[in-house]
Amino acid sequence: MSEKKRIKLEVAYDGTNYHGWQIQPEAITIESVLNKHLSELLREDIKVIGASRTDAGVHAYGNVAVFDTVNRIPSEKIGLALNTRLPEDIRIQSSREVPVDFHPRHCDSVKTYEYHILNTNIPIPTERLYSYFFYRNLDIEKMQKAASFLIGEHDFKSFCSAKTQVTETERIIYKLDVFREGNLVKIRISGNGFLYNMVRIITGTLLQVGIGYFQPEEVMMILDKKDRTVAGPCAPARGLRLVNIYYPDLE
Amino acid sequence: MSEKKRIKLEVAYDGTNYHGWQIQPEAITIESVLNKHLSELLREDIKVIGASRTDAGVHAYGNVAVFDTVNRIPSEKIGLALNTRLPEDIRIQSSREVPVDFHPRHCDSVKTYEYHILNTNIPIPTERLYSYFFYRNLDIEKMQKAASFLIGEHDFKSFCSAKTQVTETERIIYKLDVFREGNLVKIRISGNGFLYNMVRIITGTLLQVGIGYFQPEEVMMILDKKDRTVAGPCAPARGLRLVNIYYPDLE
Repeated sequence: MSEKKRIKLEVAYDGTNYHGWQIQPEAITIESVLNKHLSELLREDIKVIGASRTDAGVHAYGNVAVFDTVNRIPSEKIGLALNTRLPEDIRIQSSREVPVDFHPRHCDSVKTYEYHILNTNIPIPTERLYSYFFYRNLDIEKMQKAASFLIGEHDFKSFCSAKTQVTETERIIYKLDVFREGNLVKIRISGNGFLYNMVRIITGTLLQVGIGYFQPEEVMMILDKKDRTVAGPCAPARGLRLVNIYYPDLE
Repeated sequence: MSEKKRIKLEVAYDGTNYHGWQIQPEAITIESVLNKHLSELLREDIKVIGASRTDAGVHAYGNVAVFDTVNRIPSEKIGLALNTRLPEDIRIQSSREVPVDFHPRHCDSVKTYEYHILNTNIPIPTERLYSYFFYRNLDIEKMQKAASFLIGEHDFKSFCSAKTQVTETERIIYKLDVFREGNLVKIRISGNGFLYNMVRIITGTLLQVGIGYFQPEEVMMILDKKDRTVAGPCAPARGLRLVNIYYPDLE
């Protein structure tokens, strides 16, 4: 028996057909599918620890999962071997060994999400599962201005689903950009962590700014109130994707 | 009873869940779904005539269909009314009245297609239904050079599926561009008409150029041979989309 090592996976998925990341009874989730195929591949009982427990319908290019194994298969080959077993809506982008004390949720990280808004008069069917259709005219400059008030360290309680159990609601947003790319308006956001539904509520609020319902400066007031009910609605899951998670201590 | 008028629809669809455009017994096709919902909406027996009978799995932003109706509903409203009935993977982009002698296949037109190649090391799940995953390095400059030999009026018999019943294989390509956009390599092609599988065989041939199997100049030889077996393979349907069809006489 060889020594136990800890493996980190970068996991991309199309969230359309899954009940989110986290294991639930009687529902297919990304986590349950990874556990099943890793256990079969490595012939051990594998239980991954995920970095971001994305909701049903949310997509990812690079969510992170770790697990321990005593299998001697080279760490870099695990992802490729696993991809031959996984359904085609989940694909491991990389696998590597990390220190045994590395934890994907407890170690410092920078997470980057993108939210895609299809801003056309009529929906485009090939975009329907990967964007939020929003036909009204959007003032991107005003959205960008509103976004600028959210950058930095703030208490984001107003932008957190009331369903959360988290009590510590301070987070740092490093970067928050709103831009057009073809038919899409994209919101790209990087931070040290995000509260439950935070990116989707920020998106819903910036959309309210984009249509003129809020002035950009009102976002400061919304932050100050620390009250979920004053922010905009939570934008639908399908428009959201986790782009990547950067761990400075691992590099 | 009001007078008969001819309506032109621009139809966008995600081809993933359809057996192509054309009606087939015991299979769901775009044409059969349009006929069903138009007939219910207008309370007439409607049979659309399509411009491009796309294959199973091929997508469209703007395929064209026409039909005749005596219903008095304003022509511009038909698309919107139909969209409330259609499944969300089909969406009418516009509807308008056209002359009663307008025929979407017999009138002069410029068709534009795009083929998307996902050129990454590992597949990206959210792109899997809308692109062809091709991990090998591609020399875009060589592909563009090869493409330049196809522009103009040629006999494209080498680039036509042997299954075709068409005997007249001369076509004009007005524009043919190969370019990178993020992770995708896109091939955008406009012409006065395309033979069966022609865009997909051109794509398969340009990919052979991109990996160095063919030199760009060999494409001239492939055209000259008028023999399907000397061109590259037919690229998969899922990477192809019909972008739009322009009818100069309608404008």
